[in-house]
Amino acid sequence: MFLKENAAGDRFELWSPTKMPRASAFLWNRRMMIQVNCRGFAAAQFMQPDSAKYMHGPNIEAKTFMQPEHPYYAHHPGRFFYIKDETSGELFSIPYEPVRRLPDSFCFSAGKSDIQWRVRHLDLSTELQLSLPAEDPLEIWNLNIGNDSPRERKLSLYLYFPIGYMSWMNQSAQYHEDLGGVVASCIAPYQKVEEYFKKLGNKDKTFVLHDRPPCAFETIREVFEGEGGLHNPDALQGPAMGNGEALYETPVAALQYRLTLAPGASENFRFLAGPATDDAEIAHLRRTHLPGEGATAVAGKNTAANPQQDGPAETIRIRTPDSHFDSFVNHWLPRQVFYHGDVNRLTTDPQTRNYLQDNMGMSYIRPEVARSAFLLALSQQKADGSMPDGILLEESAELKYINQVPHTDHCVWLPVCLRAYLDETGDYSVLEEPVRNATDGEDHTVCQRITRALRWLFSARDGRDLSYIGQGDWCDPMNMVGYRGRGVSGWLTVATAHACRTWADIVAERGEGELSCEFHEYAQLMNRAMNRHLWDGRWYGRGITDDDVPFGIDGDPEGRIYLNPQSWALLAGTADRDQQREILQAVEEQLETPYGAMMLAPAYTAMREDVGRVTQKFPGSAENGSIYNHAGIFYVHALYRIGEADSAFRLMRKMLAGPGEEDYLQRGQMPVFVPNYYRGACYQFPRTAGRSSQLFNTGTGAWMYRSVIEDLFGLRGDRDGLLIRPMLPRHWPRATAERRFRGASFTVTCERSPQVDTPQVEVDGIALKRHRIDRIEAGKNYRVRVLLPDQTRLK
Amino acid sequence: MFLKENAAGDRFELWSPTKMPRASAFLWNRRMMIQVNCRGFAAAQFMQPDSAKYMHGPNIEAKTFMQPEHPYYAHHPGRFFYIKDETSGELFSIPYEPVRRLPDSFCFSAGKSDIQWRVRHLDLSTELQLSLPAEDPLEIWNLNIGNDSPRERKLSLYLYFPIGYMSWMNQSAQYHEDLGGVVASCIAPYQKVEEYFKKLGNKDKTFVLHDRPPCAFETIREVFEGEGGLHNPDALQGPAMGNGEALYETPVAALQYRLTLAPGASENFRFLAGPATDDAEIAHLRRTHLPGEGATAVAGKNTAANPQQDGPAETIRIRTPDSHFDSFVNHWLPRQVFYHGDVNRLTTDPQTRNYLQDNMGMSYIRPEVARSAFLLALSQQKADGSMPDGILLEESAELKYINQVPHTDHCVWLPVCLRAYLDETGDYSVLEEPVRNATDGEDHTVCQRITRALRWLFSARDGRDLSYIGQGDWCDPMNMVGYRGRGVSGWLTVATAHACRTWADIVAERGEGELSCEFHEYAQLMNRAMNRHLWDGRWYGRGITDDDVPFGIDGDPEGRIYLNPQSWALLAGTADRDQQREILQAVEEQLETPYGAMMLAPAYTAMREDVGRVTQKFPGSAENGSIYNHAGIFYVHALYRIGEADSAFRLMRKMLAGPGEEDYLQRGQMPVFVPNYYRGACYQFPRTAGRSSQLFNTGTGAWMYRSVIEDLFGLRGDRDGLLIRPMLPRHWPRATAERRFRGASFTVTCERSPQVDTPQVEVDGIALKRHRIDRIEAGKNYRVRVLLPDQTRLK
Repeated sequence: MFLKENAAGDRFELWSPTKMPRASAFLWNRRMMIQVNCRGFAAAQFMQPDSAKYMHGPNIEAKTFMQPEHPYYAHHPGRFFYIKDETSGELFSIPYEPVRRLPDSFCFSAGKSDIQWRVRHLDLSTELQLSLPAEDPLEIWNLNIGNDSPRERKLSLYLYFPIGYMSWMNQSAQYHEDLGGVVASCIAPYQKVEEYFKKLGNKDKTFVLHDRPPCAFETIREVFEGEGGLHNPDALQGPAMGNGEALYETPVAALQYRLTLAPGASENFRFLAGPATDDAEIAHLRRTHLPGEGATAVAGKNTAANPQQDGPAETIRIRTPDSHFDSFVNHWLPRQVFYHGDVNRLTTDPQTRNYLQDNMGMSYIRPEVARSAFLLALSQQKADGSMPDGILLEESAELKYINQVPHTDHCVWLPVCLRAYLDETGDYSVLEEPVRNATDGEDHTVCQRITRALRWLFSARDGRDLSYIGQGDWCDPMNMVGYRGRGVSGWLTVATAHACRTWADIVAERGEGELSCEFHEYAQLMNRAMNRHLWDGRWYGRGITDDDVPFGIDGDPEGRIYLNPQSWALLAGTADRDQQREILQAVEEQLETPYGAMMLAPAYTAMREDVGRVTQKFPGSAENGSIYNHAGIFYVHALYRIGEADSAFRLMRKMLAGPGEEDYLQRGQMPVFVPNYYRGACYQFPRTAGRSSQLFNTGTGAWMYRSVIEDLFGLRGDRDGLLIRPMLPRHWPRATAERRFRGASFTVTCERSPQVDTPQVEVDGIALKRHRIDRIEAGKNYRVRVLLPDQTRLK
Repeated sequence: MFLKENAAGDRFELWSPTKMPRASAFLWNRRMMIQVNCRGFAAAQFMQPDSAKYMHGPNIEAKTFMQPEHPYYAHHPGRFFYIKDETSGELFSIPYEPVRRLPDSFCFSAGKSDIQWRVRHLDLSTELQLSLPAEDPLEIWNLNIGNDSPRERKLSLYLYFPIGYMSWMNQSAQYHEDLGGVVASCIAPYQKVEEYFKKLGNKDKTFVLHDRPPCAFETIREVFEGEGGLHNPDALQGPAMGNGEALYETPVAALQYRLTLAPGASENFRFLAGPATDDAEIAHLRRTHLPGEGATAVAGKNTAANPQQDGPAETIRIRTPDSHFDSFVNHWLPRQVFYHGDVNRLTTDPQTRNYLQDNMGMSYIRPEVARSAFLLALSQQKADGSMPDGILLEESAELKYINQVPHTDHCVWLPVCLRAYLDETGDYSVLEEPVRNATDGEDHTVCQRITRALRWLFSARDGRDLSYIGQGDWCDPMNMVGYRGRGVSGWLTVATAHACRTWADIVAERGEGELSCEFHEYAQLMNRAMNRHLWDGRWYGRGITDDDVPFGIDGDPEGRIYLNPQSWALLAGTADRDQQREILQAVEEQLETPYGAMMLAPAYTAMREDVGRVTQKFPGSAENGSIYNHAGIFYVHALYRIGEADSAFRLMRKMLAGPGEEDYLQRGQMPVFVPNYYRGACYQFPRTAGRSSQLFNTGTGAWMYRSVIEDLFGLRGDRDGLLIRPMLPRHWPRATAERRFRGASFTVTCERSPQVDTPQVEVDGIALKRHRIDRIEAGKNYRVRVLLPDQTRLK
């Protein structure tokens, strides 16, 4: 097997550079993110305050949002080392690019706070490690080379970090002896004088620092590469590189070291790379992160590990018959959830729905962060009660990209996400928190603001009581269903119903009976309308266009069935038992695949001008019928909420690659994050079906974590305590969880028992009738035992 | 010598793929432009109506204006063929990339209407030719392979045209048997619904068609390349490529042909490549440009050559002691001038000053085009008399990039460029032409409009009578001298003086004495102000900042002397003889280099916030002290106008690379166009000094053509005739010119003679006292003999 986890389950290791060439892992801190793939290519961004790059492609790259299925090519940014045996002339590179010589052994090891490679070739052992410090936008690289042979070895080691095309205005690079490394400088291109002032203080320098001086260097990409090409650069042919200075030439950081290694000996190198404003900052970073010079000072130790990577409190730690699933839930899932809440996908204007859902996830990890986020979002509520398309996190931030297109669903997420926060924390005081609007200065409490948001949401409906879709709802590119002002969204109709029901429950808990009734009525009205106008016999339609044409219905040759209206109709109580059964069957037959549930099927293959941009995306990619995990997890969550534990778990499990070899190969991704999608259109394009987008920005994580905690293990909080209602898949005989909740810890053991017909719960040996633990004492450990009927035997 | 012209002087040939790796040539038609370099890399643009690409980099490229010193890298777009000897397994590629195997012989041959390569390797002769049709955005490729060996050869030929990353929304590629080639499709990315409608009908397909079916194909870049890399692609390892279909994967067009060539035999292939809206259009292009199938139908013939390439009427044809100069002037210079006037640098919003100057050049080639352009420009004049920053050529066009920054100099170019048109055509009727403003519907004649424009220009001055610079003048990035409203431009002050003098002369010719006096007074006022405030003792300063700090003066450590204020002070009559002498000496000492005159020196190495963005450009690049040929040719023109023939020619000649080997190597450009700049900062960065920008968009061409015609050969028209006042450099004993002028032709022979002290002119054997031919008869050939004093002997 070429991919496995370590014993602790907190590292995934890929033992081939070629079987899953796109496989990647990522690290982040509050100021930056870096995604590297197994072959050494990298994409890094830092915040200044908007996201920016410091290593670039070889041409003028567009500034764009993070794209799925990011393509790699020889001159793509990356971090590489060439090793030349000066005796034999043999050359290879680590991790794998650019020489692409298949080594004797290769291991790409993704950890939570570092990424490592171990490569053995030509009787040399190399270990390469990347980590980030806690705060600075900075990469810390550690390289160890050991001589495994019984003879002395003369080697040249070459660091090669391509810096790429920085700017048409001004770019250069020099070796700085005083700073100890290569510094490339540029003036980021601009033309308007006001932009000059905006850019003042920007980090326009890119540096690569070493812990010991090289014997030679090169900073001109063309000279480094020469006629040999990156797989065999000219600069490596002679005894020493040419010490070139890049003068308005594409820069590279290349350093050469000559080593003589005795048998069994090894040497350690440490390098820093990152962006900076000026030389003083670079010098400061060197002092902080390369404290001692020379190999001995830092040998092998990652002294500056980023504590945030390990940060997530263990809200839940599980042990089930599915050890891969356990590893994901115990290590990678909370990490991914934390990443979203910690740095907001490295934007300064997160889309409102993303921001709220990402912070729903944060409720389990850093509830104080989630709380602030809800308040910040509400402080940007518009005067009519609606929510803006993005939440501005910085004074200089502005709405960009898709946030310039109005979407109608943002209010939905307020009660839905707050529900999770309230359940996890019991912090109902947040509802009384006054929130001042940033522009009009008006004060309203959270409760008042959400009430207004939902009244606005409810009001945005047509004469049939269906919600207007405008230029899009959750599905961003569904932009032409209603852009002429009439089209409605079936999904938004039931999502509004669910949001209203959720809010009705919350206000009821506060004793506001009248308000609760108001929102229950809204929900009923929307549900009735959905059933009247969009129940298509076996599933719900997706909407009705400006021209009064329902779509997402049986009669449609493409986009016949959409997942989201089904999921949310289950959540909102729209569907009765019969309808539920029809829906489950339709989804299983038409949307479920080995890689999860497709968001719609069949994928559109041509523009439908009355549906919009979603139909122009490539069939099976993104919203056009991929296995879009964010939609998938809504469905999983809904299945749990209607008691369909087996289907729910089956589909949740499909969100992770593995454990079978073929599945890994097809998806091409390590299960260290859940990607935003796997390719769908499984019947149309089987060759690519299941291929991962490799994109870890997704609302999936928060919902998946919620579903594991609240649904699969059924350890959901309420106002005063913790419910114990596990919904394990029937084929699990046993599972345990360590759950931290409101300062206490709960050791929960679930077992199938032939002795029981209904679940039985004991706490510290005492049977619990209502399956709910009240009056939780912080600091205490509760031992919870759950006996579940043995459904496998019963069947 | 690795670079030479053919006997006719109309082709330049480079006999090495490595000595001048960036050397390039370009072709265009009304709908597209393609620049290819000697190694096979290409950058093509077409108009739809704004400029767009159909072959892309491997990543998401920024949409930007044409950049100097365009960098190439392995996955850069290009057009390549691999040839594999199926017997020996040997592989090479033509033109040179991607395999980079040095062939036995190599020739890159730039013609005026085609570009060819002739490569011999492994006893195979290949001839590759690119041409464009007259109208369609389409590349026509012809490839001939011949077996030079005495044995039968079994070969595989692989076309490899990378299509690159087309779109994150949707990209794919397929082989279409019915269309006969590979068609890649995409949806160009967008997010706003209104953009959908704007893009309707766009050419989102890229095709590569063949004249015979291949035995195999590949359309997936990653599969084509595999682990082997572009220099040794996996797809070439087996007997046949895998016939892959790109499904949201970066597309490539790769076709495989198996050939068996008898000794001495050859085969011919023809391919088309370009953008299209749909399959029907592709089929139509095939019918039009690949009429017969099979090798015999089109063997070796370029049936669809673009007549525009050869189009320019021969306004002048010269023969001098400098044959390289002759070739440039006779073939390449008018072609480049014609390109500018023909397609306006492939923009839909040419900068007003560029548009006017490019059409000044067109006055010599297609005067009717120039005339329309002047009228169009004036129809967009603003109500206050000023000119907009760009001229919109299409209804959908808008001001982009630098045209969104206001510049103060656009009115200058109206009389200056019209002067050349009037002199060349004698068409004074244009002055009476009514021009209706596109927005306010007001009618004014050309004469009235230019008068208003110059009154506005004159009015935009401060209390010292110096011209405000605002956010920039001719020097676009000089944006912070006066952005606070006070700073002034010395150059613009004398340019205004020159414009006013020029206009005063023109209106005087029409008998408008009073108006003429008005503008002469303006000119005198500006000239006086310049001398009072900006004469720095040995040269003129460039301006005075918002903070009242003069710059471009002796006291400045950087940007001490600028070329433009000197040139235009010479033109405007600002400088007296003493000042002229000082100026010439200062320029020669401080600005002149082996590659021409630098625009300023020393180049700025750090931001000067009171000068602006120009100081942030890389020292020696573009406006920051490069040998910026547009500025250089102003100076040349000015030198001629004050009678400095030797200096003028010396500097004009330096605008062309060669003929020395070292000069070619340093500049790295073939003299088939004059580039917008050569690197300057010669004393600061001698390694890169002289390196060509490889950018053929430049105002230089029009002025250079004007200077050759009107100044060097002195064959300038006036209202009623042709002046004969050659200003040959003294080291030329003899030179001849064929001049077409107002329907007649003039055979002009100039000779040095020890017998004369002043120039003598004879026409058809009769001495001409005033050196001016009146009453020109269309159709007649005039034989003009000019005797010039032998200055070399005198000295």
